[in-house]
Order: sequence, then structure tokens, then C-alpha cells
Amino acid sequence: MIHSPVDTTAPASTLDGAAPTSPGQAPDPTATPLGFGVGARITAAVMTDDYARVLIGILSRLDLTGLVRETGDVSTYLGGHETHLQRSLIDLAEDLARTEHHATLSVTLSRGCPGEVTCALPGGAGPRGVEVPEPRRTGRFASAEWALYPLADQVAADGTAPDHMRDIYAAIDHARELGTFRGSEHFVTRLEGDAGDVIATAVSGWLQVGRSVQHVTSHLTLSLNSPSHEARELGEETR
Amino acid sequence: MIHSPVDTTAPASTLDGAAPTSPGQAPDPTATPLGFGVGARITAAVMTDDYARVLIGILSRLDLTGLVRETGDVSTYLGGHETHLQRSLIDLAEDLARTEHHATLSVTLSRGCPGEVTCALPGGAGPRGVEVPEPRRTGRFASAEWALYPLADQVAADGTAPDHMRDIYAAIDHARELGTFRGSEHFVTRLEGDAGDVIATAVSGWLQVGRSVQHVTSHLTLSLNSPSHEARELGEETR
Repeated sequence: MIHSPVDTTAPASTLDGAAPTSPGQAPDPTATPLGFGVGARITAAVMTDDYARVLIGILSRLDLTGLVRETGDVSTYLGGHETHLQRSLIDLAEDLARTEHHATLSVTLSRGCPGEVTCALPGGAGPRGVEVPEPRRTGRFASAEWALYPLADQVAADGTAPDHMRDIYAAIDHARELGTFRGSEHFVTRLEGDAGDVIATAVSGWLQVGRSVQHVTSHLTLSLNSPSHEARELGEETR
Repeated sequence: MIHSPVDTTAPASTLDGAAPTSPGQAPDPTATPLGFGVGARITAAVMTDDYARVLIGILSRLDLTGLVRETGDVSTYLGGHETHLQRSLIDLAEDLARTEHHATLSVTLSRGCPGEVTCALPGGAGPRGVEVPEPRRTGRFASAEWALYPLADQVAADGTAPDHMRDIYAAIDHARELGTFRGSEHFVTRLEGDAGDVIATAVSGWLQVGRSVQHVTSHLTLSLNSPSHEARELGEETR
């Protein structure tokens, strides 16, 4: 179940259609999602005695086009292009919400450090620039807590010095633009709104910081169908 | 519910008995846990229709001596000394496991960046050195995934340059010594063993990296009473 740097590059180029590297040319580590370690770990919890049947049903129906999956007892790993990851995460949140059970969805996003403990890429590889995917609304409300970690140790190729608070401010400004920002609490930013917009906020912050920083992780915890949400409704613009 | 840098320093000194600062002397930001932003956010999920009653019961009985608490719909914040935090986290995991329901416990640990988005401390404050608390075993098995983030931007006061992978290697070596290390997976380290030892592994890694790095966060997700654990038993040494 462990991807070595060697065996991840091969399937990656077939997953996103990247051009194969010419013989003798060093592969560009940013060219393929799996070569750059782009992926997510997901832990879904459904508060019902019937959780096993509910979760297995949802996960078996999830559209994993363009993604690799490894299932574990603590979380499920998905690897592949950022646009595919966002699509599957929003689908999953919507499916969980439609069960009408109270559910939590914890997501870890990572890019820029493929391999296991050891980054298979040297520092200074990348960054990998990709378009921020468009949000998709689900009609389902989520409240969430979000943390974003630019793990920069060194000056980037363009001379930019690491400054993780600068990058986090920029991502939070973007969350304000998306209308999901609700405030800052200890260690996290609170997001609320359509579950699709909330997930898109986290993905876009992760990608925008990733334009200048190689290794960026982000943690998002969503609460769906919480009893404390009963008094809330999605605004007209999110229906 | 928001702690400003001003109002956290006052209760902190009463919580851990730190000596009050003399008039005119700048307070030492490492002297008190809340002044240094030491705390955790916790999301517990219990896979039963009766989850609300179960969780409210467990949380109302939790010993919060020495800690401040703020309850939210996504997570609960606990702030205070690292030893108190570890005690409460282990108590909580044990109580969740004793329900015999499948449960997940997601924990975010943070220190060195009090306040909200803006660190109320300047870079270069600290580090704060504290003793690593002794583990307490619970007799309950947990599998877990763990991530550790030394968020260092700058050279420490002793001249040490930031190198987050070096710090993570050291923490993983310590997990091997504790016997909870099971391997490295994408983006996380897998831990298994007594729930108390698993939590103590994450807390000790967080504190040991915190001896040289001001701002350190760590994310730990525990799985308790998983159906996939049924074939496992705790070894004799953990009973």
C-alpha cells in the first residue's frame, strides 16, 4: 500500500494525461499530481447505529474518476489532480448530508511532499501552479474549521522568503470573497455556508499558497446536519 | 468567545501558578500556557443514534482541572498546561472507548501562536520548554494517524535554522521508542497501541519539537472500537 517515488510517477502520467518525459531528461516533479504528492486523507463519521452500511454505500458509489484510492481503518487516501479531488470531496459531503444523519468529515490535503516520511522531492522542487477549480453548490449547509500550513523552509526560486502568516492572510482574504469566512478562533478559521463552497474555500486556499510554496497541507473538519444547525437556513443565493 | 492576547495572560497565571510579572517588566510569553497559546481542539464522533446523550455525558464528566474550555458545533477548544491537556485527552479517549461504540477522536494541538489569525506573539518568542508528561495506559486499543507541523520561519535564538523534516524524524524516532510507531503512509504516521500511549506519542512529539521551534501544531485522528480491530488484542505489556 506504500507508494514509492518510483511507482507513483508512472500511473500519474496516465491519470492526468501528462506528456511522457523524453529519454535522458529529468522528469518535472510538478508535471503529474502523484509525482508531486497531490492528495487527501478523509475520515467520515456518521452518527447512527447503521454507520457501516451507510458509509460503505456512500463510498462505493463515489465517482473516483482520475483518482487513486487506498482504504484504511482510520482514513481513506485519495491521490490525483486537484480538480478531481475537489469534485470527490464535494460529492462525498453532499452524500453524507443527504443521509440526514449528523455527520463529520475530516479532510487532510497535501501537495509538494510525495513519498512517506521522507519527501521524495528535494526542497525547491516546484511550486506546481494549477487553476483553482470552480465551486459546485450542493444545497446543503456545513459549518467547518480550517487550518492551512505552508511548510516552507527555504527561499523559493523567485527569491520569495518563507512567511507562513502572509500566505494564510491571503487565503483568509479569499475566503471572505467567497462568503464562507465567519471568523478566526483558536488555531482555526471558521467557515460556514453551502458544503460545496466550504470545501472549495479550503481547496483554493491550499492551491493559492501552493503557487509560491512547495509543501502545503490543510486540515478541514466539516459538521453536517448538526442539531445546532436546525435554526439556520442557507441563504437564497446558495439554494 | 474570542481570547485576545490581553485577557489570556491574566487567567493563565492563575491556572498554572506562574509568578506575576513585576511592574514595568515585560511579561515572559512562555511563562504561562495560555500566554503561549497552548491548547487543543477536539472533535469526537460516536457512531450511534444515541450520540448526543453519549457525548454530552462524557464531556460533562471530563476532568478539566487546570484547563479552560469553549464548546462549539465543530470542535471543543481546551487551553492550558500541556500535562493537563494530555490527561484530559487520554481520559476522553478512554471514556469514548468504554461506550463500546465505534468512535473517532480528532485532535489538533497547537502552541506558540496565541491569538486568532494573527499570532499575538512576535516571531522568536520562546521556545517554551516543558517536561514531557508520563503516559497513562487505558487498556483500550486505538489505531491512529498523526501529522506534526513545526511552523518555523526563522532562525532560532540559538542559531538553529528551521528544518521541519529534521524535527519530524526526531519525533518519529521517539514514537518507535514508545512502541506505537507502525509505519509511514501518505501525509501521516500510523500509530497503534494503547490509546493512552498513542496520545502520549503525539503530545511528546509536539513538545520535543517545541523545544527548538516556537509555533508547532499536530493533528491526531484516533479510531476506537473499529470493526476492523476485532481481530486485534493489546499485548500483555499494555493490559
